[in-house]
Amino acid sequence: MNMDLLNKTINAIKGQDKAIRTQAKERLDQLIMPHWALGRMMDLALDLAGICGTVRPTVERKTIVVMAGDHGITAAGVSLFPKEVTVEMVRGFVNGFAGINVLAKQAGATVKIVDMGVAGDLTELAKRGNIIDQKIAPGTANFAVGAAMSREQATEAIEAGIRVAHELADSTDLFGTGDMGIGNTSPSSAMVAAFCQLPVAEVVGRGTGLDDAQLEKKIIILEKALVLNHPDPADPIDVLSKVGGFEIAGIAGLILGAAAAGKPIVIDGFISTVGALLAGRLAPKSKEYMIAAHRSVEKGQLAALADLGKEPLLDLQFRLGEGTGAAVAMNLVDGAVGILTEMATFSEAAVSEAK
Amino acid sequence: MNMDLLNKTINAIKGQDKAIRTQAKERLDQLIMPHWALGRMMDLALDLAGICGTVRPTVERKTIVVMAGDHGITAAGVSLFPKEVTVEMVRGFVNGFAGINVLAKQAGATVKIVDMGVAGDLTELAKRGNIIDQKIAPGTANFAVGAAMSREQATEAIEAGIRVAHELADSTDLFGTGDMGIGNTSPSSAMVAAFCQLPVAEVVGRGTGLDDAQLEKKIIILEKALVLNHPDPADPIDVLSKVGGFEIAGIAGLILGAAAAGKPIVIDGFISTVGALLAGRLAPKSKEYMIAAHRSVEKGQLAALADLGKEPLLDLQFRLGEGTGAAVAMNLVDGAVGILTEMATFSEAAVSEAK
Repeated sequence: MNMDLLNKTINAIKGQDKAIRTQAKERLDQLIMPHWALGRMMDLALDLAGICGTVRPTVERKTIVVMAGDHGITAAGVSLFPKEVTVEMVRGFVNGFAGINVLAKQAGATVKIVDMGVAGDLTELAKRGNIIDQKIAPGTANFAVGAAMSREQATEAIEAGIRVAHELADSTDLFGTGDMGIGNTSPSSAMVAAFCQLPVAEVVGRGTGLDDAQLEKKIIILEKALVLNHPDPADPIDVLSKVGGFEIAGIAGLILGAAAAGKPIVIDGFISTVGALLAGRLAPKSKEYMIAAHRSVEKGQLAALADLGKEPLLDLQFRLGEGTGAAVAMNLVDGAVGILTEMATFSEAAVSEAK
Repeated sequence: MNMDLLNKTINAIKGQDKAIRTQAKERLDQLIMPHWALGRMMDLALDLAGICGTVRPTVERKTIVVMAGDHGITAAGVSLFPKEVTVEMVRGFVNGFAGINVLAKQAGATVKIVDMGVAGDLTELAKRGNIIDQKIAPGTANFAVGAAMSREQATEAIEAGIRVAHELADSTDLFGTGDMGIGNTSPSSAMVAAFCQLPVAEVVGRGTGLDDAQLEKKIIILEKALVLNHPDPADPIDVLSKVGGFEIAGIAGLILGAAAAGKPIVIDGFISTVGALLAGRLAPKSKEYMIAAHRSVEKGQLAALADLGKEPLLDLQFRLGEGTGAAVAMNLVDGAVGILTEMATFSEAAVSEAK
């Protein structure tokens, strides 16, 4: 198996520039306000300086990459919506009237859709632009009865995400992740259960709106699937291939590619955080490039965030995905850069300091 | 005492349009996503429709009004910064390099500064624009030794805020509140203690950064001041005049004026929330126009928010004031309007609905 691109990318991730972080901290300590009075936005400013390797980072050109893929596990009845909705939602993204279109526009971000493995033909739709074709297969296999994908496909899918990051890096200062894939809370929960060695019931939520009985059924299906596939938590590719998804792999690849290019990347909700968990297991230093956007309603995200050591910026009770939380959080990234680069220090402003 | 403007304004506040809220809810229920999957932004969209009286509200023209005033209580040693910093910070706002300038710019909002009672001459600075003169007096009296202001001044100050709202309403779709006034967490805490009948220690915080001993001193000063002044919680003007501040009165007036004009108003942190508490006590229906921006580090805000029945949108560990939290939250208001007015419904998009 050729893993050159993946290994090269992992090796290229340097981590934040500590000297620049120190310089940024010195400036932020002296801004005209009580010390650190803009709290988490100042922590964020430090990260942005460290990631971008400059005390004057730019985040003007924003790209939200929505990774789309389908899931064989929907055949087991884990979702309220039929698989066909994935294609229909991608059409919505292209037409520009879905949640992510509206919130990306508000944040001044461009939306790119990547077909990582949609179970439908997007050729006609792709002619209208904005869809990047990286299709590995038309949906994963049903991991209730076997592996979701082969080991080769798992690596290929991550590398596809890396290639997307490379392609966009020259025109992007700030990346955001997003996902679309009916049924994708199931592989996400299974991956968290496997990586974090937690009982399925602790990491499964209602997805698009399951009732109690449907939720119970989802838990049992995932418990059985994990016993059947027995993913090895120490082997990220094994976890991905056995119980993962193509769009989750694409998100992980996008994060690795962004990190290797020295770009900050805003991580959306549950599915994206699982992609981040995978990226973090493959390349621990990639965590230094991640900005956790929001706390999802899906409880499996909690364990993934804890594993990554991240506290999300927002808690708006979102459970949509698509990159919607990442889009909203991009406004805070803009603000953080403004604080670092546009505010005056006490001495610049000649304002009396605290006694 | 002439309270015509105040009474007229209170009587003009109608509350949200329930029929329009219902119409907005019907549309939001059908948007192309799992039901209510953008959570609190959809709740916010409902409020905006109800406030603006239309299912197609506009929030494009944003104005953040920073009410500035000084406090005689600083003579008692309740703040780390000298009173002179109020003027210096107002100079910072005019020069455009303070926190509020940066975050308002990011949100696309205009900043207006109102001199409600700064203890310094702003005439020269005012020539450079952006300062509205409504000065009641050069700072309040020290309420550690007597009332902060007269009953007449209290009413005048609220009416000054109402006039500012009237003046700006024609060019403003969305208001935001802000404050500047060295020492103003002290009157704010005293007002919350008085209105909510809570022990001072439960509603006092570290302000610009007091240590434990300084905090203890602040609590004792405020406890004594409340015993001395004995404000009547059932009489909002009494509470304001005895232990309040001019800028807090101005914020309350701004909120009442915005509500009477049918405009939504984003409430910043602790000081602004106390202004909102005062407005809510004067005119309970004004609460329907308030959007709570963020949870402040100052713990006194909690009781004020609970009294208003508001849950803030953000928690970014801000403790600056100036309207900085309101500015950041305006991005979410923009997003909420986008969701209501730009997303498609399932039938418009012809996407399969949930089973």
